[in-house]
Amino acid sequence: MAERDDLGDGSHKSRRAFLSDAAALVGIAAAGSVSGAAVAEETKKALDNGPPNIPEWMKAPGADVGSQTYGTPSPFEKSVIRNVPKNLKQYTSSASRTPLQELDGIITPNGLFYERHHGGIPEIDPAQHRLMIHGLVDNPLVLTMDDVRRFPSESRIHFLECSGNPGFEAIYSKTASDLVGLVSCAEWTGVPMKTVLQEAGLKPNAKWVVAEGADAAALTRSIPIEKCMDDAMLVYSQNGERLRPAQGYPLRVLLPGFEGNMSVKWVRRLHVTAEPIYSREETSKYTDSMPDGTARQFTFYMEAKSIITRPSGTHKINQGFNEISGIAWSGHGKIAKVDISVDNGKSWQAATLQSPVLTKALTRFRLPWKWDGKPTVIMSRATDETGYTQPTFADLTSVRGLNSFYHNNAIQPWKVAESGEVTNANVKA
Amino acid sequence: MAERDDLGDGSHKSRRAFLSDAAALVGIAAAGSVSGAAVAEETKKALDNGPPNIPEWMKAPGADVGSQTYGTPSPFEKSVIRNVPKNLKQYTSSASRTPLQELDGIITPNGLFYERHHGGIPEIDPAQHRLMIHGLVDNPLVLTMDDVRRFPSESRIHFLECSGNPGFEAIYSKTASDLVGLVSCAEWTGVPMKTVLQEAGLKPNAKWVVAEGADAAALTRSIPIEKCMDDAMLVYSQNGERLRPAQGYPLRVLLPGFEGNMSVKWVRRLHVTAEPIYSREETSKYTDSMPDGTARQFTFYMEAKSIITRPSGTHKINQGFNEISGIAWSGHGKIAKVDISVDNGKSWQAATLQSPVLTKALTRFRLPWKWDGKPTVIMSRATDETGYTQPTFADLTSVRGLNSFYHNNAIQPWKVAESGEVTNANVKA
Repeated sequence: MAERDDLGDGSHKSRRAFLSDAAALVGIAAAGSVSGAAVAEETKKALDNGPPNIPEWMKAPGADVGSQTYGTPSPFEKSVIRNVPKNLKQYTSSASRTPLQELDGIITPNGLFYERHHGGIPEIDPAQHRLMIHGLVDNPLVLTMDDVRRFPSESRIHFLECSGNPGFEAIYSKTASDLVGLVSCAEWTGVPMKTVLQEAGLKPNAKWVVAEGADAAALTRSIPIEKCMDDAMLVYSQNGERLRPAQGYPLRVLLPGFEGNMSVKWVRRLHVTAEPIYSREETSKYTDSMPDGTARQFTFYMEAKSIITRPSGTHKINQGFNEISGIAWSGHGKIAKVDISVDNGKSWQAATLQSPVLTKALTRFRLPWKWDGKPTVIMSRATDETGYTQPTFADLTSVRGLNSFYHNNAIQPWKVAESGEVTNANVKA
Repeated sequence: MAERDDLGDGSHKSRRAFLSDAAALVGIAAAGSVSGAAVAEETKKALDNGPPNIPEWMKAPGADVGSQTYGTPSPFEKSVIRNVPKNLKQYTSSASRTPLQELDGIITPNGLFYERHHGGIPEIDPAQHRLMIHGLVDNPLVLTMDDVRRFPSESRIHFLECSGNPGFEAIYSKTASDLVGLVSCAEWTGVPMKTVLQEAGLKPNAKWVVAEGADAAALTRSIPIEKCMDDAMLVYSQNGERLRPAQGYPLRVLLPGFEGNMSVKWVRRLHVTAEPIYSREETSKYTDSMPDGTARQFTFYMEAKSIITRPSGTHKINQGFNEISGIAWSGHGKIAKVDISVDNGKSWQAATLQSPVLTKALTRFRLPWKWDGKPTVIMSRATDETGYTQPTFADLTSVRGLNSFYHNNAIQPWKVAESGEVTNANVKA
């Protein structure tokens, strides 16, 4: 029994200390259904009479293997779907949000990955799809998907986030998904963009790569050559399988850490240029209006951010032990630290970061918390490896003003009422 | 242009050398559709006249956001589904296999995760599901799913593999999926089993934990207490979302690195005992018949293994540059090394391992290869961090004989014909 005796030693002390705190857990957790005493009694009866409650589903064989061609979630999870804004004027230029408050870990399943489209979701035949690389290159190329797949590949786990997540006016929304559900994370496989550009041969004055999507919006963004030669990818697979249509099937750009719209989906052209193209998406849209009337342009990086997803808006907690859990991420690299306050920002303590902590990927954080049953406000604050710390909304707007729409990475506070009900602590004045 | 000039320096030499090899790539790759010259010509025309082939899907808006409640793959990928053995006598005790030869990276999407059921897939209402912990414990417990979710959680990426993957008689199958498609990998979230057992309080003579599933087979396995107190988990989420029904919804055991059937799905009981239960699944099944007539029992660990998935059986390659890619894993920890032979085992070279290399998880490996067009046999060989190396089938059977069914981790050779067609190099004598 060496394993268990070991648990008494110093190296496991914090664990043991936590568990003694958690000793109250089961009794309290069970209070809603069976009391601690009742648990023991039910179990005692079970030990005498065999396990309690032989359920119906043990009495007859279940569904056949192969009864599904492609698997789907349990019917009991049918409410766990992407969140589409209600009463939209039109649905071809819109978004759907990942139900963050229902998810665990860092991987977003493909069926729940957030979407943002500017001209709807095209259905592309991969056999007909072409990628053209032209402009300031020595050898212009037109590649089939088979050509693209012959290049050396890489797989990397990265987050993807819309730059308006949430818009400055949307900080009063109900759930974690309503607020920052335009972020998701996946394992991407594809070709380093650098490899393809080197194959074409860049001319000395090549400074930008203009990527164009094969959707009805022909979404077009200019990417600095430095990013293209760093960690930019041309991606064909997501979480093992080929990209979903909503994610750019059969081929998309992925710019780790940059605002999502630049990771052009359904990519059909990489036009190498000396100057940016100043497309609609970098003039009319995706610029940040500042208080002095100017606008910030080409604000690529998604800054460090975090949110507590459990408990969060619409959840209800019990007195006693609760695990606080959430996600943190930064477009500048790895998350170095997440602090949590359970007293409305008066004091902070460090959360545990789930390993592996990966660059430009979601990082799951957790903190055990014993709630005393008194109303309070809880919040998280991420710091990335550059030393940058996520600001409060007040701090952010003191610099950026309120005309801005994109790049809101403010701390999200959640109010816990005496009833245990959790709501957004941001309240319109 | 510092980024590009840097590419000429020593640190990038191997990359540059590779790319000069790969320079032939595009011309060759395009040979099937357009020649290298034609590529340039098509592109020149495009530059004069605008991008070629404005496809139909750019001419009208695509599908609405929210047109799907839960996302699905492209209709062009409809053949990428799990592989169910044909002409089964019955489908409630059977398996379906992950289409490994179609997948990239290390994460298996939930819709393609392999299945193995002994009594079909039960449809369980999580509100009615209970987990009982009893036997040699101080405080027997009956937990609801809400109770289970209140415990401190962890998320970890691990593979899961059936012990008969493939059976000794099945080494002549066609595809990577037919051979070893009973392995998949996901990010799992749940409670360390240790935490729950400590909550119940183990008595000094507690040596085994007997886990029972709530399926019609009441699948039952005995787990050594050492594993339960090490990295065993009670899992409720897989790749972010709740477990699929076929994966044990709402709760399963996960024993990283152990044979899959021990990771009991739909778990309803943890019975703490002094001795194993000697259930059907550890007597009639899941034991290994040895040449001397004895049987190995409780052979928990899945030993180091690897397979080239691309190119693999049914694929066809072109002369010139090809990337060889596959997966490696070990139940004993991390993969330390994967060697690849492109000359039927005469010589070996080290593949690149995709980081992060995680313990008891799939590891993606890759090697650039210039095929000279001559028939050959390619294969991979994994070594784990304990120093153990994957054997040939001949070496394995020289020790284990041919009466065995489970725990075949032999090297898988693929034959490349002059036509470029890839087939299984294991041929029945």
